[in-house]
Amino acid sequence: MPHPFDELNLEEVKGSHSVKWSLFPEDVLPLWVADMDYPVAEPILEAVRERLSRRIGYPQGAGDPELLEAIIAKQERLGLKGLQPENLWLTSSVVPGICASVLALSSPGDEAITQVPVYHPFLIALKEFNRVTRANPMQPGETRWEIDFEQLESLVTPGTRMLMLCNPQNPTGRVFTRAELERLAEFALRHRLWVMVDELWSDLIYEGPHVPFASLSEEVAQRTVTLTGPCKAFNTAGLGGGVAISHNKEILARMQKVSLGIGGHPNVLSMAAWLGALRHGQPWLEQTLAYLKANRDFLTRFLAERLPEVRYTPPEATYLAWLDFRALGLEDPHAFALEHAKVGLNDGAIFGEGFKGYLRLNFATSRPLLQEALERLASALKGSVVDS
Amino acid sequence: MPHPFDELNLEEVKGSHSVKWSLFPEDVLPLWVADMDYPVAEPILEAVRERLSRRIGYPQGAGDPELLEAIIAKQERLGLKGLQPENLWLTSSVVPGICASVLALSSPGDEAITQVPVYHPFLIALKEFNRVTRANPMQPGETRWEIDFEQLESLVTPGTRMLMLCNPQNPTGRVFTRAELERLAEFALRHRLWVMVDELWSDLIYEGPHVPFASLSEEVAQRTVTLTGPCKAFNTAGLGGGVAISHNKEILARMQKVSLGIGGHPNVLSMAAWLGALRHGQPWLEQTLAYLKANRDFLTRFLAERLPEVRYTPPEATYLAWLDFRALGLEDPHAFALEHAKVGLNDGAIFGEGFKGYLRLNFATSRPLLQEALERLASALKGSVVDS
Ligand SMILES: Cc1ncc(COP(=O)(O)O)c(C=O)c1O
Ligand SMILES: Cc1ncc(COP(=O)(O)O)c(C=O)c1O
Repeated sequence: MPHPFDELNLEEVKGSHSVKWSLFPEDVLPLWVADMDYPVAEPILEAVRERLSRRIGYPQGAGDPELLEAIIAKQERLGLKGLQPENLWLTSSVVPGICASVLALSSPGDEAITQVPVYHPFLIALKEFNRVTRANPMQPGETRWEIDFEQLESLVTPGTRMLMLCNPQNPTGRVFTRAELERLAEFALRHRLWVMVDELWSDLIYEGPHVPFASLSEEVAQRTVTLTGPCKAFNTAGLGGGVAISHNKEILARMQKVSLGIGGHPNVLSMAAWLGALRHGQPWLEQTLAYLKANRDFLTRFLAERLPEVRYTPPEATYLAWLDFRALGLEDPHAFALEHAKVGLNDGAIFGEGFKGYLRLNFATSRPLLQEALERLASALKGSVVDS
Repeated sequence: MPHPFDELNLEEVKGSHSVKWSLFPEDVLPLWVADMDYPVAEPILEAVRERLSRRIGYPQGAGDPELLEAIIAKQERLGLKGLQPENLWLTSSVVPGICASVLALSSPGDEAITQVPVYHPFLIALKEFNRVTRANPMQPGETRWEIDFEQLESLVTPGTRMLMLCNPQNPTGRVFTRAELERLAEFALRHRLWVMVDELWSDLIYEGPHVPFASLSEEVAQRTVTLTGPCKAFNTAGLGGGVAISHNKEILARMQKVSLGIGGHPNVLSMAAWLGALRHGQPWLEQTLAYLKANRDFLTRFLAERLPEVRYTPPEATYLAWLDFRALGLEDPHAFALEHAKVGLNDGAIFGEGFKGYLRLNFATSRPLLQEALERLASALKGSVVDS
């Protein structure tokens, strides 16, 4: 029997007018921005519908106390203990938390270290706010991307204030091990850096476990702000919802202050959706993870058999594949995929300097659409090889 | 037959855990923050439910094009013409637009003029951002509060940059006439001030019409940013949604820049609710306005007959009554109402200097609850007179 995700209702998907399905012409398969094409979990929709049946007046300023409790309980299960509601600050989604962290934990001209490739708003925020990005490029290993700890040391100057981590990492799909995180923590403490860690992807892990960075020690917790939210795991990006978590309340107070009232108040339906996800979303999440993992494995086989020139190590988390197209000698792989294969991907160049020639592919679609996209890429590339 | 709003389901209202119904102890009737106790309009709920049945991925960056068109069409009907989607910038609610306006249109140390009493976030934003508030106190007239144009002139210094208007005005309920607005516009142009006008209440008018400030002339439009949103008219405060509108795109670009990415992306369910309101909410709005007007008239009669010492002129708009309790000689009318009448109101002092002794009462509740609250106030005051 086919899996329900194999048979997506594309009219519904397109009818959502999402940016994913609106940016490119109709004949392009969009496998770019990090939305899944699957329907939102029924228990979440249920929670939102139920919430609508009451009233939707102004919520309490710090957010729904039940949601705060549920987020704390979830973090406890992950290993981050000792949180109180005052250690949480709800944001409209995760990106505002990234921006607020940079503003709160550094000053113009200061330097921030981050492993690249990385979710591009890290780099955009640093640039926009006139901070200096000190990039620590990940190194391709045999089975996974590796942190270059040696180069990391060389990046520190007296102007370095922050370490910005993305774990699990978008776009490499790395889930950093406890050992790696401990080395990063030791590094951050030794240089007295503030740490922003974006753990938004921590529910979408194939090979884990997820270790919350702030759980490593009390000293680490005092220098760290953790960002997360419901939107990746539960496919609710249009609804937003995010939280900044820190044992150091001073960090949160500074983040709130630099946010200048621009963030607005929490959204009651976003909070209801998030609470529904935390309470009742686990079975859906597990089914979805199984489907995603099978998509990943399908992609891995396809690349190995049909596109062996594309260098790739399977992601341990996320539904993103980080593809090195450089061996194919295309001038602009992103434009090539769009024009010749009619497949819309993310251009690797946006994720950090030195990643021109890479593409990010979002495999959270139906298996048939994924296969179709890969077939299109394979035949376009075959054509291009014949042509040249 | 009783009106359905006469028979509110208080379990539902309380079950929403709104700040309105959570702040005070159970035995207090909360008639403060600007939410209505009525259910949200069915067509809006319908629009949100329908939207949920599709997907809730990332929306297009500038927001749903259909919503932008519907907002433009609405403004055209009000008399504000010539808007294109680029003249609109969606915010998560109206307060972020207030904050962004102050940041975009003035610098620290600059002065801003505003008529007081006024929605307190105007004053909070100015203070937080180290701007100087130059208050233009409204004057009590026989039937309405009046702008003091003479004092207004005297407020201008070389450091004056902005005029911040609230029209209709929270908390006096004034709907400024075209003649008044023209005088304000002439004043602003003569002194080359930027104008932020918060027209959030413009759908809740008993004695109109509403004249959009930016519609007065092209010159005025070029110096004005208009803020509005769905939440007051349609009772959707917990869902947010706001828009900054300007014929001068440079103003919007500056507002976006000072917002530093903290605003996040538009929320798809808020947008769906707003679109539903614009398309199908009018009948509900008209019924609600009729009920509110009758509440206002009930309040007016009650005060005249039972509490003639409370000075009051009926609002031309909003569901807020601005009550002058000073003649009663209470030390702290707000605390008195809370403790002795078990009625939770807003303390007038927050709306501007010189308004200690005033209270703001939200009459958007059921007639029976409104009556109950007023009876409680009347008998507490009677008790206090006997006591003293
Ligand atoms: C690492 C990371 N952080 C944050 C976000 C965006 O989060 P939000 O939509 O909650 O702002 C994304 C989206 O893809 C992401 O990959
Ligand atoms: C004049 C005025 N502006 C703005 C707001 C708040 O708007 P929002 O909830 O959309 O931020 C209110 C709320 O009462 C108001 O009275």
